[in-house]
Amino acid sequence: LKNNDKDLFREEFLDLHPTDQSEIFKQMGEVKRKKVYQFLSAEEFSQLFKGLHLHEQKQIFTELDDVYVLKMLKELPADEITDFFSEIPEHIASYLLNKMEKKEAENIKLLLTYQDHTAGSLMTTEFIKVSPHITAEKLMEQLRQEGMSAETIYYIYVVSEVDKLIGVVSLRELITSPLDRKVEQLMKEQVVTVTATTDQEHVSTIIKDYNLLAVPVVTSGDRIVGIVTVDDVMDVMEEEITEDIGEFAAVKGALDLDVNSLIATKKRLPWLILLLILGMFTAGLINFFEATLAEVAILAIFIPLIADMAGNTGTQSLAVVVRGMALNKIDSTAFWRLLKREIETGLMMGFVCGGLVSIVALLIPQGSPALGLIIGISLFVTILFSTLSGTVIPLIINKLKIDPAVASGPFITTINDIIGLFIYFSIATSLLHYL
Amino acid sequence: LKNNDKDLFREEFLDLHPTDQSEIFKQMGEVKRKKVYQFLSAEEFSQLFKGLHLHEQKQIFTELDDVYVLKMLKELPADEITDFFSEIPEHIASYLLNKMEKKEAENIKLLLTYQDHTAGSLMTTEFIKVSPHITAEKLMEQLRQEGMSAETIYYIYVVSEVDKLIGVVSLRELITSPLDRKVEQLMKEQVVTVTATTDQEHVSTIIKDYNLLAVPVVTSGDRIVGIVTVDDVMDVMEEEITEDIGEFAAVKGALDLDVNSLIATKKRLPWLILLLILGMFTAGLINFFEATLAEVAILAIFIPLIADMAGNTGTQSLAVVVRGMALNKIDSTAFWRLLKREIETGLMMGFVCGGLVSIVALLIPQGSPALGLIIGISLFVTILFSTLSGTVIPLIINKLKIDPAVASGPFITTINDIIGLFIYFSIATSLLHYL
Repeated sequence: LKNNDKDLFREEFLDLHPTDQSEIFKQMGEVKRKKVYQFLSAEEFSQLFKGLHLHEQKQIFTELDDVYVLKMLKELPADEITDFFSEIPEHIASYLLNKMEKKEAENIKLLLTYQDHTAGSLMTTEFIKVSPHITAEKLMEQLRQEGMSAETIYYIYVVSEVDKLIGVVSLRELITSPLDRKVEQLMKEQVVTVTATTDQEHVSTIIKDYNLLAVPVVTSGDRIVGIVTVDDVMDVMEEEITEDIGEFAAVKGALDLDVNSLIATKKRLPWLILLLILGMFTAGLINFFEATLAEVAILAIFIPLIADMAGNTGTQSLAVVVRGMALNKIDSTAFWRLLKREIETGLMMGFVCGGLVSIVALLIPQGSPALGLIIGISLFVTILFSTLSGTVIPLIINKLKIDPAVASGPFITTINDIIGLFIYFSIATSLLHYL
Repeated sequence: LKNNDKDLFREEFLDLHPTDQSEIFKQMGEVKRKKVYQFLSAEEFSQLFKGLHLHEQKQIFTELDDVYVLKMLKELPADEITDFFSEIPEHIASYLLNKMEKKEAENIKLLLTYQDHTAGSLMTTEFIKVSPHITAEKLMEQLRQEGMSAETIYYIYVVSEVDKLIGVVSLRELITSPLDRKVEQLMKEQVVTVTATTDQEHVSTIIKDYNLLAVPVVTSGDRIVGIVTVDDVMDVMEEEITEDIGEFAAVKGALDLDVNSLIATKKRLPWLILLLILGMFTAGLINFFEATLAEVAILAIFIPLIADMAGNTGTQSLAVVVRGMALNKIDSTAFWRLLKREIETGLMMGFVCGGLVSIVALLIPQGSPALGLIIGISLFVTILFSTLSGTVIPLIINKLKIDPAVASGPFITTINDIIGLFIYFSIATSLLHYL
């Protein structure tokens, strides 16, 4: 590229896997990038373009002329184009849609109507469908022709005249069966399907549990409208991991290693300030009980212990609930069963930890049976309540469809701190005359 | 099954997808299970057996006789057998290995030697390999014969006479190309590979990034020894999610919704007790500074605030590092760059939060400029140190190959609480005469 040697560059670069091409391309500055556009045809560049992140695609897109873009779009699968179009300004997207082939454009317009995070938004319309009446040999012939433009040829979907999905044939079955066999004899009639509105995490669970390479998306009338393939679903799982971590660390969208400290600060600081404001309540609470604290100064030394344990038990319950929600396992029966179990668990853990800490409070130099009792009961009640709030708060927030980041670990921890300290000082104040 | 009607049961049950068969089977009691063993052949049962979890497989296994088990094992892919054999008592595994076909047994013995969490432990040896010199037509013939016993036929690996991997042909390319074309003309020579010792998370990243259905496992001499398929990797990603959550919640292996409260308590309580003991240090620390606290009681009200903010900033940094480690992105250059960024981020976030809290401490009724200064500086230093410890501690623990659960959110939070409170009281004590 340095020597402006087009042939040498093409020879070496095109020999690489498209994913590696993308990786190298990402490192290039604008001058080098412009040379790549010249040296590669739009068709070749489309392979590389696929491997870029959406925000990179958006930037690169502004550097390309219309003709090149349209040629490139022709090579991209419909689901990739849809993802990309939903990111760029609407008027540019509709301008491009008008210039595209009509059938392809219709397709993409349809895909654009599906909501984010659903099977509809993940699916592609480039799948292979056949009539049940043709022979294996005929089908092989069809695959030979359509094979290169479909997203996958490893599953062939068998449809009736009205596009109703009636079966599926895997390419493996097709290949290992006699050539004169009819498709209807080969196909499996029990097809695992999803609908366009199925949540993307549910789609990924289905593909994983049934060990599929793709799952068909059908309408309520069993008409097949698209397929979701396993590679789309892997990206969903990746997203899910990042989301889950966000729920434990109040760092929504700030997990990138490559951003500089200014951007990292900008993304994390708002959360910290929110937590700081919430944390002020703990200060207010202790201030409210100042009289009690002034009378029995020793109470202060257990403040962080109570707060920590409230946070820890809450986070444990939160983890169970977050995992359960991700796996779609919490319906209303499961909720009540889970709540009952968490209460019992909280009672037992509270009893043991409360017991332990009361012994310690009894044995320290300034200790007394009354102090042991206060701290023991407080920790017991705190752990019980924290288990509950760690279970219930994320579920409520999920139900209310509030941004789940608000139910993240640090928020629940801070709320539990407030509850825990309130319990601690209330019990201490009411038992004050025994101290 | 209730009516003992074998034919009806077989007809309805075998019509289901094996994954659904497993789900139904899991709900059955012992009596019903025994009937299933009678009604289904070992070959049919093997499909269902695959869909069970390892601990379920282990239990079911004790209910089956040897002949049935051996027949069933014959139908299972080598990687499934290996997983299962590494779970059952060694003498039973070697007894079964002796009874199995010699070639198959050798295979599994080899697979059993690979370490957990590596490509070697995930891979299967049932892949399709061909010579580069045969034609597409010949290869199709070979697929027709071997197709059913291989784990995947969608990638065909091209090997030299000494089993050296020299290329790969996808079934899609094979099908869409002329029948008289030679394999060596069809194959891609740039093959993405892993070795048997490659970490499983790295394998899953490769399959995801390159959109593969399988990746070949090669020796240092490029000899192909097995393949890892996309479905194995999805299970790895699932595991990874659970692990990541464990790192934030100290609930290692206790995320199951279905266990009762006694088991949940048994799994979570040890972590809580460990954290309780660690939390005792916070009590000891405040006790150590009791003289300061007795003199300026108002200091107590900011204890939970300092502790909370220490925990929150630490958890944010931890999230970044855990994600980076999972994606294999933190080498030694990246480490120093990350450390620098986190220090800068900590400085900025500390400055803003410290500033805010010092204004509050100045404005409250019992407030004073000195109090504002103490709490502001303390929070600033605490946030800086917590950012650091949240970055460095998990990396050190990872380097030392200690169980990463010890670097989980609650542990880092408690350690940061201790550091934060020490900073707070040290600063307060040294500035005491200004208050």
